[in-house]
Amino acid sequence: MLYLLYLNVMTYPRYTSLVNDLPSTVPFVGPETQERERKLLFEARLGANENMFGPSPKALSALKKYSNEQWMYGDPTSFELRCALAEKHKISTENIVVGEGIDGLLGYLVRLLISEGDDVVTSDGAYPTFNYHVTGFGGNLHKVPYLADCEDIVSLIKKAHSVDAKLIYFANPDNPMGTHVPGDKIVEALKELPLGCLFILDEAYSEFAPTASLPNLEITDKRVVRLRTFSKAYGMAGARVGYAMAEENLINSFEKIRNHFGMNRLAQKAALEALSDNKWLLEMVQKVENGRQRIYKIAASNNLKSITSSTNFVAIDCGKDGFFAKKVLTELISLGIFVRMPFVSPQDRCIRVSVGKKRDLDRFEEALPAALKRASK
Amino acid sequence: MLYLLYLNVMTYPRYTSLVNDLPSTVPFVGPETQERERKLLFEARLGANENMFGPSPKALSALKKYSNEQWMYGDPTSFELRCALAEKHKISTENIVVGEGIDGLLGYLVRLLISEGDDVVTSDGAYPTFNYHVTGFGGNLHKVPYLADCEDIVSLIKKAHSVDAKLIYFANPDNPMGTHVPGDKIVEALKELPLGCLFILDEAYSEFAPTASLPNLEITDKRVVRLRTFSKAYGMAGARVGYAMAEENLINSFEKIRNHFGMNRLAQKAALEALSDNKWLLEMVQKVENGRQRIYKIAASNNLKSITSSTNFVAIDCGKDGFFAKKVLTELISLGIFVRMPFVSPQDRCIRVSVGKKRDLDRFEEALPAALKRASK
Repeated sequence: MLYLLYLNVMTYPRYTSLVNDLPSTVPFVGPETQERERKLLFEARLGANENMFGPSPKALSALKKYSNEQWMYGDPTSFELRCALAEKHKISTENIVVGEGIDGLLGYLVRLLISEGDDVVTSDGAYPTFNYHVTGFGGNLHKVPYLADCEDIVSLIKKAHSVDAKLIYFANPDNPMGTHVPGDKIVEALKELPLGCLFILDEAYSEFAPTASLPNLEITDKRVVRLRTFSKAYGMAGARVGYAMAEENLINSFEKIRNHFGMNRLAQKAALEALSDNKWLLEMVQKVENGRQRIYKIAASNNLKSITSSTNFVAIDCGKDGFFAKKVLTELISLGIFVRMPFVSPQDRCIRVSVGKKRDLDRFEEALPAALKRASK
Repeated sequence: MLYLLYLNVMTYPRYTSLVNDLPSTVPFVGPETQERERKLLFEARLGANENMFGPSPKALSALKKYSNEQWMYGDPTSFELRCALAEKHKISTENIVVGEGIDGLLGYLVRLLISEGDDVVTSDGAYPTFNYHVTGFGGNLHKVPYLADCEDIVSLIKKAHSVDAKLIYFANPDNPMGTHVPGDKIVEALKELPLGCLFILDEAYSEFAPTASLPNLEITDKRVVRLRTFSKAYGMAGARVGYAMAEENLINSFEKIRNHFGMNRLAQKAALEALSDNKWLLEMVQKVENGRQRIYKIAASNNLKSITSSTNFVAIDCGKDGFFAKKVLTELISLGIFVRMPFVSPQDRCIRVSVGKKRDLDRFEEALPAALKRASK
């Protein structure tokens, strides 16, 4: 009897020892899951840094125009999209790989470089999905504290020296605080990058930031890979289109491991059209700037400070500790406002609110005083 | 100087030793790449086993209806779709994981089980993307020959015993030959499955096959994972929606490693609608059956035999060896007909032709005699 139990429990399937040791936690719980638990839809979806203004009408037209191509697999090379991206960034198609969002590309990057026991450096409280992938491939994460709500690039690089890191993760602008480091500071700091350490520059929010936030780096620079997405400024989070830009040998290495037929065909077409509509992009950036200003005001009228943002979200300092901010967040959620918050102290004194349409921010403005009052009880 | 060269070549980035050793070959070259090389579009796209009849009008309506949701990430749990699938298959949502096509799910499955040096069994000439993933995670592939153009389940299981395999891959119906093994034979053969060996049953084409091809297995059976897709009978290859069905602990293990936000939101919605249109599905199966009959006739009128197919494609025996079939294929491509062929002898005496619309098969019918004639020269 016990033997049969053993057979059933122990033999199917034989996971790798790494997988056996992995935690079952997931990086993010989606708002849909929270809605099912609440048995009520959210009134405002301001927690996932989505772009509520949505994609260019050209991208929406592409979805309709090409819906009759749904029966075909997407082009595994995303060639047309890579051509357009190459033109935009004045690089070659050989310097670009398109993937299933930055999340997917981060997974591939980690897989290319990290075996069990390899060392990786990131900021304490930075993007958890990157950490999820590093842990998932058995890497050791070394976390460097934020400095005045910014990712501390100098200390990240110092840490990389001390642990012989193969990878550094650095988001500019940063999520969840929304701050940025000027591009020339990045270039300067990279002079100290250890040999053999690849610097991942996640620029998911870069369209919302000042141009001076972009470091001037050659695409032939083997030390850096830059990540971009259509999920934020282009308003297409649901499409799952991201891309990596780097020296061509690194880009080519993705071919060894990626899911070649992983891209949705209509998403490829929509991204191509979105890219052609620079007017929409500029309008979007302006709308997001207006939304940030409105969130600053809402915070101020509740006697709360905001962290100045270079993204489509604002971290609002709730004025006390993480325990208090969590209570504010919980109350906001119970009032139908989906928001999130940083995971780690001292950033977790904040809640993180995405820019929404007027109606969404109206709801937030109504709910915040009540949430603060209830949390203070 | 040489030292600088060394730094540049050897230090960026530090790939894993596994990645360094991986080949740069990709599983499939897409038809778009071939079209760019030819500088000419194909007249008939009959090589990727896509379903040219396309998805249910309900699925197409969903694409339009929900296009304004493109700004939102998809539900990372694909909950609504899993509920509908659970109802269809009379299992629980806990027994289903949705992923980026069967290709994506195969990648996850291999990653869960295979470390460097682990052993895996498949048929010689079966789905190359599975082999790509096994190699990509460092597994050893053991290939068992086909038997009379069928995957030989008894020998696959015997081989798994002899090499202590952690995984067996078995497609039913099979690709590229289109044959199937009756479900009760599978159940019988599985009695001999070694302990600790997981049996992957890829049922991508199962909707086109006789019901008797489906083995009657309990979902609590820890030995088996079944894979299904919306790419074939549901006509949505471009959407990238597949799912795995298995005992819930195995399903749950995907949560440790998968790209949680990898699913396209509109694809989730379209798949849900497609699932609700059983009438369309049945029509599709009938249309594909008619198409198979037409391909058999085209082959016969050129004095060629066909392998009887349980899928949406037909392997046509070109009557000689792989060298000759390759010539026929090359001529067909030069005549604007995109087809593919098996990679391995003796299956490579065939070309593989997907069922198309009347117009597509007309083009194929016109081109085949010329291609055979040119190949015979």
